[in-house]
Amino acid sequence: MSKGKVVLAYSGGLDTSCILVWLKEQGYDVITYLANIGQDEDFEAARKKAESLGAKKVFIEDLRTEFVEDFIWPAVQANAVYEDRYLLGTAVARPCIARRQVEIARREGAQYVSHGATGKGNDQIRFELTCYALYPEVKIIAPWRIPEFYNRFRGRTDLMEYAREHGIPVPVTPRAPWSMDANLMHIRSELFLSGSESRAPADLYLMTKNPEDSPNVQDVLEIEFKKGVPVKVTNMNDGISKNTALDVFSYLNEIGGKHGVGRIDIVENRFIGMKSRGIYETPGGTVLLKAHLDIETFTMDKEVRRIKQGLGIKFSELVYNGFWYSPECNFVRHCIAKSQENVEGKVQLSVLKGQVYILGRESPKSLYNEELVSMDVQGDYDPCDASGFIRINAVRLREHHRLQGLSSTKQ
Amino acid sequence: MSKGKVVLAYSGGLDTSCILVWLKEQGYDVITYLANIGQDEDFEAARKKAESLGAKKVFIEDLRTEFVEDFIWPAVQANAVYEDRYLLGTAVARPCIARRQVEIARREGAQYVSHGATGKGNDQIRFELTCYALYPEVKIIAPWRIPEFYNRFRGRTDLMEYAREHGIPVPVTPRAPWSMDANLMHIRSELFLSGSESRAPADLYLMTKNPEDSPNVQDVLEIEFKKGVPVKVTNMNDGISKNTALDVFSYLNEIGGKHGVGRIDIVENRFIGMKSRGIYETPGGTVLLKAHLDIETFTMDKEVRRIKQGLGIKFSELVYNGFWYSPECNFVRHCIAKSQENVEGKVQLSVLKGQVYILGRESPKSLYNEELVSMDVQGDYDPCDASGFIRINAVRLREHHRLQGLSSTKQ
Amino acid sequence: MSKGKVVLAYSGGLDTSCILVWLKEQGYDVITYLANIGQDEDFEAARKKAESLGAKKVFIEDLRTEFVEDFIWPAVQANAVYEDRYLLGTAVARPCIARRQVEIARREGAQYVSHGATGKGNDQIRFELTCYALYPEVKIIAPWRIPEFYNRFRGRTDLMEYAREHGIPVPVTPRAPWSMDANLMHIRSELFLSGSESRAPADLYLMTKNPEDSPNVQDVLEIEFKKGVPVKVTNMNDGISKNTALDVFSYLNEIGGKHGVGRIDIVENRFIGMKSRGIYETPGGTVLLKAHLDIETFTMDKEVRRIKQGLGIKFSELVYNGFWYSPECNFVRHCIAKSQENVEGKVQLSVLKGQVYILGRESPKSLYNEELVSMDVQGDYDPCDASGFIRINAVRLREHHRLQGLSSTKQ
Amino acid sequence: MSKGKVVLAYSGGLDTSCILVWLKEQGYDVITYLANIGQDEDFEAARKKAESLGAKKVFIEDLRTEFVEDFIWPAVQANAVYEDRYLLGTAVARPCIARRQVEIARREGAQYVSHGATGKGNDQIRFELTCYALYPEVKIIAPWRIPEFYNRFRGRTDLMEYAREHGIPVPVTPRAPWSMDANLMHIRSELFLSGSESRAPADLYLMTKNPEDSPNVQDVLEIEFKKGVPVKVTNMNDGISKNTALDVFSYLNEIGGKHGVGRIDIVENRFIGMKSRGIYETPGGTVLLKAHLDIETFTMDKEVRRIKQGLGIKFSELVYNGFWYSPECNFVRHCIAKSQENVEGKVQLSVLKGQVYILGRESPKSLYNEELVSMDVQGDYDPCDASGFIRINAVRLREHHRLQGLSSTKQ
Repeated sequence: MSKGKVVLAYSGGLDTSCILVWLKEQGYDVITYLANIGQDEDFEAARKKAESLGAKKVFIEDLRTEFVEDFIWPAVQANAVYEDRYLLGTAVARPCIARRQVEIARREGAQYVSHGATGKGNDQIRFELTCYALYPEVKIIAPWRIPEFYNRFRGRTDLMEYAREHGIPVPVTPRAPWSMDANLMHIRSELFLSGSESRAPADLYLMTKNPEDSPNVQDVLEIEFKKGVPVKVTNMNDGISKNTALDVFSYLNEIGGKHGVGRIDIVENRFIGMKSRGIYETPGGTVLLKAHLDIETFTMDKEVRRIKQGLGIKFSELVYNGFWYSPECNFVRHCIAKSQENVEGKVQLSVLKGQVYILGRESPKSLYNEELVSMDVQGDYDPCDASGFIRINAVRLREHHRLQGLSSTKQ
Repeated sequence: MSKGKVVLAYSGGLDTSCILVWLKEQGYDVITYLANIGQDEDFEAARKKAESLGAKKVFIEDLRTEFVEDFIWPAVQANAVYEDRYLLGTAVARPCIARRQVEIARREGAQYVSHGATGKGNDQIRFELTCYALYPEVKIIAPWRIPEFYNRFRGRTDLMEYAREHGIPVPVTPRAPWSMDANLMHIRSELFLSGSESRAPADLYLMTKNPEDSPNVQDVLEIEFKKGVPVKVTNMNDGISKNTALDVFSYLNEIGGKHGVGRIDIVENRFIGMKSRGIYETPGGTVLLKAHLDIETFTMDKEVRRIKQGLGIKFSELVYNGFWYSPECNFVRHCIAKSQENVEGKVQLSVLKGQVYILGRESPKSLYNEELVSMDVQGDYDPCDASGFIRINAVRLREHHRLQGLSSTKQ
Repeated sequence: MSKGKVVLAYSGGLDTSCILVWLKEQGYDVITYLANIGQDEDFEAARKKAESLGAKKVFIEDLRTEFVEDFIWPAVQANAVYEDRYLLGTAVARPCIARRQVEIARREGAQYVSHGATGKGNDQIRFELTCYALYPEVKIIAPWRIPEFYNRFRGRTDLMEYAREHGIPVPVTPRAPWSMDANLMHIRSELFLSGSESRAPADLYLMTKNPEDSPNVQDVLEIEFKKGVPVKVTNMNDGISKNTALDVFSYLNEIGGKHGVGRIDIVENRFIGMKSRGIYETPGGTVLLKAHLDIETFTMDKEVRRIKQGLGIKFSELVYNGFWYSPECNFVRHCIAKSQENVEGKVQLSVLKGQVYILGRESPKSLYNEELVSMDVQGDYDPCDASGFIRINAVRLREHHRLQGLSSTKQ
Repeated sequence: MSKGKVVLAYSGGLDTSCILVWLKEQGYDVITYLANIGQDEDFEAARKKAESLGAKKVFIEDLRTEFVEDFIWPAVQANAVYEDRYLLGTAVARPCIARRQVEIARREGAQYVSHGATGKGNDQIRFELTCYALYPEVKIIAPWRIPEFYNRFRGRTDLMEYAREHGIPVPVTPRAPWSMDANLMHIRSELFLSGSESRAPADLYLMTKNPEDSPNVQDVLEIEFKKGVPVKVTNMNDGISKNTALDVFSYLNEIGGKHGVGRIDIVENRFIGMKSRGIYETPGGTVLLKAHLDIETFTMDKEVRRIKQGLGIKFSELVYNGFWYSPECNFVRHCIAKSQENVEGKVQLSVLKGQVYILGRESPKSLYNEELVSMDVQGDYDPCDASGFIRINAVRLREHHRLQGLSSTKQ
């Protein structure tokens, strides 16, 4: 008698292969689901592996376009950065993956979903909050939080042994001393057993060239935005041009990666209240962040920008913490999208040796008025007005000083 | 009969030399004041020039150390960045300069202060708000906002002619097509008569090497912080070390400049409500911002950080707008300083080709707990707790979905 | 030769009557405009007065419905309160009045608008920012800021004398020692020449009964909301019911006023940086604020509410400062309106002796789930989850304590 | 063999008496602890009851003064209000109670603490986060979250039966259909099994007179503040005066209660993500909130106030959610206390029929400048400055309009 169907987020790796077999052992019918969000993976090999391990069904889903359009683009509009540095490449991928998993679970009549995320990380939260939000009755099996599982598999050796016993193919190359999460937007690496002060090994980086070795000739790109989203990128060096969401983003990854753009090594605060170290490569996302910041400030009213900046920080926290599918994140996304209506125009930038330099920008919606700002043209602006402006702003400061004078006189 | 004494912020250049003479013509006794805040200037030549033009007294004041300690350091603690990009190099210098000017005015019994800032910019505001806050009874003469002055001097030609007539030395080299403001922290350049899309000329940059031409060998620095402020910098390549405020900052400028760090080209929103384009070089400040962000996140509680981040944004706006000497900026600086008590430790970073890469960090006050975060060590942490954490966080999301389900059923 | 047409915001009182004649003297063709926004005024007498004083045209415009629908309703949605107490009755009226004035000016081909607001207050700003935003080329004549005017009319005596000389009817009753601004939403009174500690005279209040003298029998109202806006009010005592915007608001004024609701005596911070004392009566607005807060919290997600609360505070500041017609206030209004989509349902409340007591509420969109919250029914909720939730929230607190322990041990 | 010592927060009621006996049954040595925070309780009877039920030790601690000084006063300084209405009377009491409990546990060498809070509420969180923060190694026994306990005691009948079996005195009066939490600051009542729309019964209120029945003669109080905290209250009617923290607060409760001040009936959002209905009486706290708001706005700079308002909202959320003893709440309390340094002076107010009316205020630190604000005295203020102020503020609005004009022309 089956305990029911479970849709397992399957990566093809050792962990989730063991979980697949373990779930079968527990009496579940296992459906595996593997999302293609741009990671470097042999999807057909993974399919065969899952089938050979007893998956009742295997779903391999190409989510790359929806990942870019539905998840990366809103992050670009928001200038989404967590704790001033992390561009949220993993955080925006989780709701994308879980959304489809839940669709499959509903379609297949599965009551359960499962995943291989650890019990100390953010990903379990991002994954499960999405599942609960979109499929509130779902039951979630998180083996790394189930004592029978994690007490049995106390380390990699236990997994390897279990794999050998159950005919699960075992990786032949030794494991790198870091874990990795890769998708179209970024690669995140976490060093094992390392202090915060040890340096990341050079071969950890896969998406970006070492800036020391990258070309000393810049690429000059022109990125065109509409409604705060890139619609076209052109390389001014060779005229190459892209204009679909997936192509634009992939091309920015290519150019950014070639020049070593978007590497950071940070300690960040997990939702769960602990600090962890992460090393990230986000080439295309970093180029886009710089370009979007530029065209946004160019076309957006100053005070709208201030309010929107606060909403962007809120958005980043929500996404980091796993609340993409929450009423508040819906609300914030709506507000941010509203703010982007006039964020339109072209940004020219140079990419070189790990850096992105803005060279210029133009826009039909620009609020930049060359004549108004010119030091040589007076235009409609009367400099005398500034005297009044300053003096009124000083009323409060002078009163404050007066009071302090009174206090100090008294003392 | 003299109209009274005026302390003029004098740069030695054409504009303020003309203002000096013009103020004399208007009947004032002119005291000139030139602050050394690290700009590249022949101060003795400026002294002689002022004397020869009839200044009653000439003050040349070395403010470099107080500029770093009293103004740049609080900005470092705040991670001060205006509109996500500008590091406020000019904005933090203004209150420093004006503070001393007002001291001189009080000491010399001058009722008036004067400056050569234009009527469309931020600097007039920063300058004058400081004066009004610290010397509320002061009267300010801003010639570029006085019709008799600005109607007489409609362009550089008028100034040149006036100079020749009044024995003011006239610059022999043609003027660059941009204006410049330089100090220890940065150089700001504003292009004349240029659109937002034209590229900045290569010879505009003075503090930073062009990254294309900068060395392809990194410098590795270790910066030590106490209370959120750098107390020592050591070059790991050659062992050079600095440990006074002025030396540390100057050395970071040197290394940052050598590698082309800290160039930006932006359009920003002036307080006065117009957009302007600025090109900035902030080599040392950029290195410090990255290093401080790192040590701060490493040693500061996550939620304190969130609150402090908001205060830092507020601080940046206040400083940009000229409110350094305001009750609210005092308050915010106090709060930020409080947050920095444990921001202590060492950051190692590499500087190369326009970029700063954090390599590692260590601190006696670190909140990073390697064992707690480890995937292989369970420690005091019970993974089962995460299930409860997630499920409680999902209560609201599931309820929301339930309500939406009810609505859609009804429709 | 006429200097051109000016549209004067005319109240019928002494000040603006003098301004009317003075503008004529200066050579302008004066068009008077008087907005009916619910103040107690003899509009026909005002029309005749203006005509007799030489107005070329007289506009008297009934704006009451648009005042409620376009200005008061958004304030209700925002829970708009300035500095925690003031409900913005004057601030929301100004853009309503000025919007029509500018429409008239455009229609009549007038280059100028004029008003009688003083040079120290907020109203001049609210008025003029609206004019500049909607009619950027307009020229504004503010006599109380023109030296020739305010030096001539240094006090009420000068105005009275001028009035007698120019056939302007002079008020026969002595002036109350306070100024007043009245509209449908509130009456604001400012005491002349009074300290902050003197008590407001009893006869200053016009919209609200003294609570000491108000009935000791409560009225029980039911207010129905849709999209955050009241669509119906019913008196449960007598069954009286209203359902148009103007009727609903007027009826809430009537009941609130009868019971002395909405009196406050505050010192507030003007935009212009000085503190002033104001005494306000806002009967209907106060009832609505309490009712809206209740239905909003009942139907809105907790986290959306937090974000919206911040937007409401921002909205209040913008409106107080006169920025109704600004890009940022448009943006904030849009976001707030979005948040109100599900703010729907009925609130029952009692009004008595200056107070409003919420008695209960119901809504088809309620997120209140009686079963979920019940202490006797467990439902879908597993209390064990709370243990994990609390322990995960404590991870950070315990780490912090650990660090402090380390520090104190070391010392 | 004992399992160890547990310090139980004991109320003397049925629930915690059953828990006491149940813990004994489980093998613990039970120490009971009852905090006197001003609730109406027969503490000696509770002591005897605990002893008779087998408590190894009984602690009854008078925390009233520290409750007022260490917990209520910071809330007053913060104008602490949760979700615009709830004054946090229960939330500020929890850390006060738990702090002492943890002190006792440490002193007595107890590894365990226990409480009778339910598994759906906020109090369990406030209680336990305090314990974990101050005593990180502590183990917490929360019976209402332990399946063996809550499955055994599914309702009041089960508790009654258990009580009878174990010699626990059983209450003779039938239970009111609501639960109650009382302390010096407030009484909170939660209705059982009631919808959100049913009205609260009249006999539920204990601290406050029904305003319909309260006297129709006002009490006029003068409250004196230093550093944002009341140091003296004087009744202007009869000259009664109090000047210790506990006396001042108790007297405000007495006068507030007599006049029916501080009743609210709200639906609020628990930390745990569900909405619940609460009925609160906070007489003294409500008087103080109004008085403090008044003296604060009177003496605090406008822009400091804005920043502090945001910190106060943050403080309220933290306290509501149980984070009193967190790094961020420490930080926020420090900042708020800093803001209160000049919040000093006297507020006169009238209390009548459920309302508090501010009558006037005076302060040696007032920033209110009668001459500056006067309409009849010009003083140092030049009205012309306002023109410049307004025109500069309009620069941005006019540019925005210009752009919109361009867009609409093009279309």
